[in-house]
Amino acid sequence: MAAERAHIANNEANEPSSKIVRFGTDMPLKLDSGKILTPFQIAYQTYGELNAARSNAVLICHALTGDQHVASDNPVTGKPGWWDVLIGPGKVIDTNRFFVICSNVLGGCLGSTGPATINPETGKPWGLDMPIVTIGDMVRAQVMLVDHLGIDRLFSVIGGSMGGMQVLQWASSHPERVHTALPIATGARHSSQNIAFHEVGRQAVMADPDWCGGRYIEAGKRPEKGLAVARMAAHITYLSEAALHRKFGRNLQDRDALTFGFDADFQIESYLRHQGMSFVDRFDANSYLYMTRAMDYFDLAADHGGRLADAFRNTSTRFCLVSFTSDWLFPTEESRSIVHALNAAGASVSFVEIETDRGHDAFLLDEPGLFSAIDGFLRSAARARGLEELA
Amino acid sequence: MAAERAHIANNEANEPSSKIVRFGTDMPLKLDSGKILTPFQIAYQTYGELNAARSNAVLICHALTGDQHVASDNPVTGKPGWWDVLIGPGKVIDTNRFFVICSNVLGGCLGSTGPATINPETGKPWGLDMPIVTIGDMVRAQVMLVDHLGIDRLFSVIGGSMGGMQVLQWASSHPERVHTALPIATGARHSSQNIAFHEVGRQAVMADPDWCGGRYIEAGKRPEKGLAVARMAAHITYLSEAALHRKFGRNLQDRDALTFGFDADFQIESYLRHQGMSFVDRFDANSYLYMTRAMDYFDLAADHGGRLADAFRNTSTRFCLVSFTSDWLFPTEESRSIVHALNAAGASVSFVEIETDRGHDAFLLDEPGLFSAIDGFLRSAARARGLEELA
Repeated sequence: MAAERAHIANNEANEPSSKIVRFGTDMPLKLDSGKILTPFQIAYQTYGELNAARSNAVLICHALTGDQHVASDNPVTGKPGWWDVLIGPGKVIDTNRFFVICSNVLGGCLGSTGPATINPETGKPWGLDMPIVTIGDMVRAQVMLVDHLGIDRLFSVIGGSMGGMQVLQWASSHPERVHTALPIATGARHSSQNIAFHEVGRQAVMADPDWCGGRYIEAGKRPEKGLAVARMAAHITYLSEAALHRKFGRNLQDRDALTFGFDADFQIESYLRHQGMSFVDRFDANSYLYMTRAMDYFDLAADHGGRLADAFRNTSTRFCLVSFTSDWLFPTEESRSIVHALNAAGASVSFVEIETDRGHDAFLLDEPGLFSAIDGFLRSAARARGLEELA
Repeated sequence: MAAERAHIANNEANEPSSKIVRFGTDMPLKLDSGKILTPFQIAYQTYGELNAARSNAVLICHALTGDQHVASDNPVTGKPGWWDVLIGPGKVIDTNRFFVICSNVLGGCLGSTGPATINPETGKPWGLDMPIVTIGDMVRAQVMLVDHLGIDRLFSVIGGSMGGMQVLQWASSHPERVHTALPIATGARHSSQNIAFHEVGRQAVMADPDWCGGRYIEAGKRPEKGLAVARMAAHITYLSEAALHRKFGRNLQDRDALTFGFDADFQIESYLRHQGMSFVDRFDANSYLYMTRAMDYFDLAADHGGRLADAFRNTSTRFCLVSFTSDWLFPTEESRSIVHALNAAGASVSFVEIETDRGHDAFLLDEPGLFSAIDGFLRSAARARGLEELA
């Protein structure tokens, strides 16, 4: 247990509302790249109380641009937590019963060590000198946090998209510490098309002269235009053609007729511009590069000789996978291939495909099918584990 | 007939290999925006010979980034014409039988009047002072070209993607001048998602400081980075996930292992970067803005009270529509709704959906199903018109 060696502090600089655990040079993190990261820190939030048996902990893993504020107001945007619809007292993931943990991933930009934090060797922001982090590295840091909190075994690890990749990595690398795993709207590897979209986003950021080769903080600049373009392109992939047609169609924005110009004539244009502009207010451009790269690099089967089933051999973790019919970033086929691998590995696995036109982002929305799937699975798993008080 | 009023010249400045027709101030073009464009010029290529009856002319309409060099080497890239696989002596569109015409669209950048050509009022490049052009305006200019060539009735109007939109516009606005129409991989209106992708591309161009508010030519600059990003994003939409998986998967580029950095580790990354970089060598950034806007604005039903069938009332044109199963930019459903409208209008219509994983770009490729569909349709239409020499 690492609690005694880690230093707890409020992060007075960045995130007054987050807890911070700092891992000193006595607790270095060896990354997949072979590089050593030390010292480093992880910002996290907890909700509810850890029970005496330390058996009711649920780890939530966030997606590409998510953060630790999963069920409480986000201090940067002032908006409710990103999974506030799902997590809280009396909600599906009931913080009256579960001790919920969510940490900002390694390489993130809301309190955990990332490219915008200070490189102790130089006294300047890491920028691109920050080593590349992988999904595996994010999970290694989370393991240290869970150790620090004195928890041997997590009742559940839950996440969507990049969060789902972390769930799969947890279940593969630490099966004995994961009672149940819920990978949602995710894949065991990033597809060629998904890498392509990420590369477009990175090139958009890097094309912005205000990116300054990654040294924009010292230059007193921000590559806002490039990052906004990256977000706009990505945002399209989070939705679906059907949902865009339903919500926007070819509707005009506050006008009766086309203006025959390049203003945002169509609602979809002003919606996308808004998505781009509001994103740059809350996210660090270099972190965006690192997060997208971590997803691109994820390939769980490749780490196991090309056989995904071998990533889950002899696991006793119970799995529940969820996909959405209109998700074209992580189509149902991705989840199905994980289910096949888990079956081949002899794992206990449920799989729910939810009919919706809301695309990939459905996992973040008030989606009844998702909520009932998670609720039913967690209740059943709690009963099976003899944790009647959780069921 | 406009021939005597139009001035023919070789375009010694831009395109020595293209014919140019200049329409003087006595032949103004009234645009959909209400603005008048005059004078203006259209660059075009022809292949084969017009027969004595002037009944064997085939007009080819090019797509977003296409040009008039449909069946002969492109003078800018040195590559074969963009539909060289389809058009030429003895080919499916046989220039021993047909007189093939292809013009650079109005607003284009290969000889026709566009934002990079000189605004006669200022003596400087038009830039964004060029009026917005629509698909209807492109067709109006083509009508003037066809008049100039002394052709009353085209045996066929053929095009894919934005070219297909022009085909539909021709058939709708000038049914008496179009014997057969082949709209391929297209739609009667641009979808919300397609507008969204175009808007990302435009924002990428405009975010580049070298765009200079559209006045980059006078500034001696080119918004290459922004235009490359726009092209990269668009290029993904021209392919399909299946084709990307088949061609690139997660294969690495000239290396044995991940480099843990932001170089192009994956083949798909270097492929996309190449697509972006080679595009900026051959295309004008402002023209890209105008072409995407023309597609966004296209909505044939809206021009007819919301009923697409009313765009084709009492037409005697014979139609053949082609779609591709993996085209997610213009899914088969778009073609099917045009077919339904044509049926409702009592038109003669064939429809072929071609099974392929090559996505939207299939219309530009050596696709046997496409070739046999065009070949069969044109032969049958020629026989029906009594043009045995064409069949």
